[in-house]
Amino acid sequence: MLHITAGGKRIAILGDETAASLGVHSGDRISVAHKQNTIVAIANIAKDIPENRIGFYEETSQILKLKDGDRVEAQLAQIPESLIHVRAKLKGQRLREKDITKIVQDVVERHLSEIEISAFLTALSIHGLSMGESEAMSRAMVETGKTLSFGEPPILDKHSIGGIPGDKTSILVVPIIAAAGMTIPKTSSRAVTSPAGTADRVETLCPVNLTIDEIRETVNKTNGCLVWGGSLELAPADDLFIQVEYPLGIDPLLLPSIMSKKKAIGATHVVIDIPTGAGAKIKTMTEAYLLASDFVDLGKRLGLTIQCALTFGEQPLGCAVGPALEAREALTALMGESPRDLYEKATSLAGLLFEMVGIESGKHKAESIIQSGRAEQKLREIIEAQGGNPDLKPEEIKVGDKTAIVAAGQSGRVLWINSESIAQIAREAGAPREKGAGVILKTKLGDIVKKDSSLFKIYAERGAKLESALELAKTLQPYVLSRKAEEQMILDQVPANVVLEK
Amino acid sequence: MLHITAGGKRIAILGDETAASLGVHSGDRISVAHKQNTIVAIANIAKDIPENRIGFYEETSQILKLKDGDRVEAQLAQIPESLIHVRAKLKGQRLREKDITKIVQDVVERHLSEIEISAFLTALSIHGLSMGESEAMSRAMVETGKTLSFGEPPILDKHSIGGIPGDKTSILVVPIIAAAGMTIPKTSSRAVTSPAGTADRVETLCPVNLTIDEIRETVNKTNGCLVWGGSLELAPADDLFIQVEYPLGIDPLLLPSIMSKKKAIGATHVVIDIPTGAGAKIKTMTEAYLLASDFVDLGKRLGLTIQCALTFGEQPLGCAVGPALEAREALTALMGESPRDLYEKATSLAGLLFEMVGIESGKHKAESIIQSGRAEQKLREIIEAQGGNPDLKPEEIKVGDKTAIVAAGQSGRVLWINSESIAQIAREAGAPREKGAGVILKTKLGDIVKKDSSLFKIYAERGAKLESALELAKTLQPYVLSRKAEEQMILDQVPANVVLEK
Repeated sequence: MLHITAGGKRIAILGDETAASLGVHSGDRISVAHKQNTIVAIANIAKDIPENRIGFYEETSQILKLKDGDRVEAQLAQIPESLIHVRAKLKGQRLREKDITKIVQDVVERHLSEIEISAFLTALSIHGLSMGESEAMSRAMVETGKTLSFGEPPILDKHSIGGIPGDKTSILVVPIIAAAGMTIPKTSSRAVTSPAGTADRVETLCPVNLTIDEIRETVNKTNGCLVWGGSLELAPADDLFIQVEYPLGIDPLLLPSIMSKKKAIGATHVVIDIPTGAGAKIKTMTEAYLLASDFVDLGKRLGLTIQCALTFGEQPLGCAVGPALEAREALTALMGESPRDLYEKATSLAGLLFEMVGIESGKHKAESIIQSGRAEQKLREIIEAQGGNPDLKPEEIKVGDKTAIVAAGQSGRVLWINSESIAQIAREAGAPREKGAGVILKTKLGDIVKKDSSLFKIYAERGAKLESALELAKTLQPYVLSRKAEEQMILDQVPANVVLEK
Repeated sequence: MLHITAGGKRIAILGDETAASLGVHSGDRISVAHKQNTIVAIANIAKDIPENRIGFYEETSQILKLKDGDRVEAQLAQIPESLIHVRAKLKGQRLREKDITKIVQDVVERHLSEIEISAFLTALSIHGLSMGESEAMSRAMVETGKTLSFGEPPILDKHSIGGIPGDKTSILVVPIIAAAGMTIPKTSSRAVTSPAGTADRVETLCPVNLTIDEIRETVNKTNGCLVWGGSLELAPADDLFIQVEYPLGIDPLLLPSIMSKKKAIGATHVVIDIPTGAGAKIKTMTEAYLLASDFVDLGKRLGLTIQCALTFGEQPLGCAVGPALEAREALTALMGESPRDLYEKATSLAGLLFEMVGIESGKHKAESIIQSGRAEQKLREIIEAQGGNPDLKPEEIKVGDKTAIVAAGQSGRVLWINSESIAQIAREAGAPREKGAGVILKTKLGDIVKKDSSLFKIYAERGAKLESALELAKTLQPYVLSRKAEEQMILDQVPANVVLEK
């Protein structure tokens, strides 16, 4: 018995001879019985395990109720049905709903190995999913996890496919919607490769790691919430898939992953933000339209009303990048002082949600909710309900006290800001782990700058991080300036700050 | 420190908090330093590892010269270059020779995880390999392993892509070639999914697990050998790839896998046997011709002369299936009493090899070497050189003493024998682990049988195995008989017993 866990994986470790005498090859399944308990585990074959002994990780030992030295019965088990379907997908075959259900069940129950899940996801990434397969995948991911229900529909939600640094729109949209008396139970993720996820941002305002009961209470009290979705076991298959996708840099389950989380939280009307632009995940409008129509179709199949917003994704949103800096910017925005693009985007998305449930002039309504202070008030209620200080002042949100300015090397107009480079610099400065770290943009696309004036400011909690972020900024050069302020021809081709399309 | 091995994998196990404070996500690389030693390991994140502690498997501990409780320095390492190439292949990009070399090196040095190797092989399986990629893969697999050299060319070799139960041809071909004074250092594999590999068969005649020095000695003495290739570290990347391919049931590296092993053993002239038929790996002649031409092309690029033989693959070869039964049949065949198809195939393949090195009437020469008893004599020399008894009599090769006959339920002509079912029955009887287990076919395609006469006989070493094999035989019904012996129209379409084409 190995007194460590294997992250839920059901693995049995056998020596060569034991494996050979059972006719077991590395990667085969063995069925292991101890008294009345039986499990199927994946065989790993190692050299230094004594004959007729099997090693188990903690999880497996617990299921079998094993103590060191206990006798177990082991034999070669059949290949699981799900693996037959995985192999069919490797050959490019289309899977039936029940095949996909079986695969997702076996992923959640740890009956498929990482090798097999990786092959499955790679095949999906190459062959693509049919709409029927996406639907089956979404349903199976919901069914194998917990689900929430918040009473009478409509239950509203908002999701961004991501990729734009500084996108703190949710912190504005949720209180706008909730202030209008609509339910919006928003779960968010933490950053994996970005400088901040919404959960990281909100965590500088109040706790986000709530239990399902606490979420229910918060939503009952305030109509909304801004919580971390990671530990709620909504669509847990998704989390397992993401772990395998991450090192491969693939994302074949983009649609089912989002839709299953929305379905599991009980949403009925969802606006999906698709940031579009050469610096975003989705590069062209054509791509964005295709994706949007898939979202709408899949939504229909799952009984969800979906509206997609194709948004301008050529630069970071607002000025702040990094958990605390962004939270501060979001709170300030609701208090009446917002970067124009953040205000436009938040009120447009909230407006779309209003119109989806039959409220006319949605954007206007969203604007008036901010202007009246009701959105700020609602955010403070949510902060309080989640266990934070409702009277928090923006300047009380702690940001890094080690700062440095990156200045323009010439005069000119800002033609291009590399979002990816800004994100990397913020991460180098310490974000998202060091919540006060990040970047504040002092200029944005189209601005005219003078030589030696500030382009952006780096914040860090530690001097060493500040220095390495500065170093990286010098290497990456995220800003491109025109030679003369008069050179405007490229900027002429950029659309208005926010482009929203149904 | 975990006192177990991980099969060479370089894995570091971190707790959540430690991972988070290093900014490390599961699957990321971390660079770990202890005194003057540094390695890069793949991070696995577990729940119950105390903060600021890292768990290592035995291999990693040894490289770092670690004792329990030693302090190490750990930090997030860069993504390895090979993973960038893996990701490019997932997108369908063609890889350059140096990209493939990097991947194979990192597979052998355990810098790529199973998730990544699985994704790579899946992408290769779906997209296929260009001839240039196959060449690069073959070369890289040779370069990352040991190589052998047996002096002056030609060095002959023979390989079957497999899939036909009972194919003991190598045990005849090697002594025929060696008896003619040519060098043929044959390495073989053990069975993975079949009832017997050539190494399993030969092991009932003499030891097959020889060191490289012992192989050299055997070949110097006898011109040939029949050894297990598994522990020689010839093209070790191949063995690592096969471990991942096995559960997935894919085989994208068929060509490079075979060619790298042949190149590593120093072969210059190789005949490749491609069994073809509905019951074989390769189903149609068209497929077989395509594969054959790829083998010949790839051989040219690698400086190997290749001849492919497309052979009749509709039924097991000879009558015996199972390690000892097959070894007995092979020895008996060289002593003058052979099933016709085995004799035909062995002399044809040996004949092709003779003709490849300029000897005319190759098949005739091969036949005369058997008929003169020189092939039998040579096999006995090889058995002796490898440490076996040169005077072994066929009946001294121990076969299972628990036997049962499966009889025909009706009279008729044998129209179809399901090779896969015969293989399964032999495995159920205990093969390849229990070397005396297997099946002897009493009738073959085209034979006329009477009701209640023997179709095949099952051999087992243990009664329970015999019973379950019999049970399986009843379920699988591997023989299809015509209703009347007169119904011959289907058999008319079958070619002669052995079809050989260049």
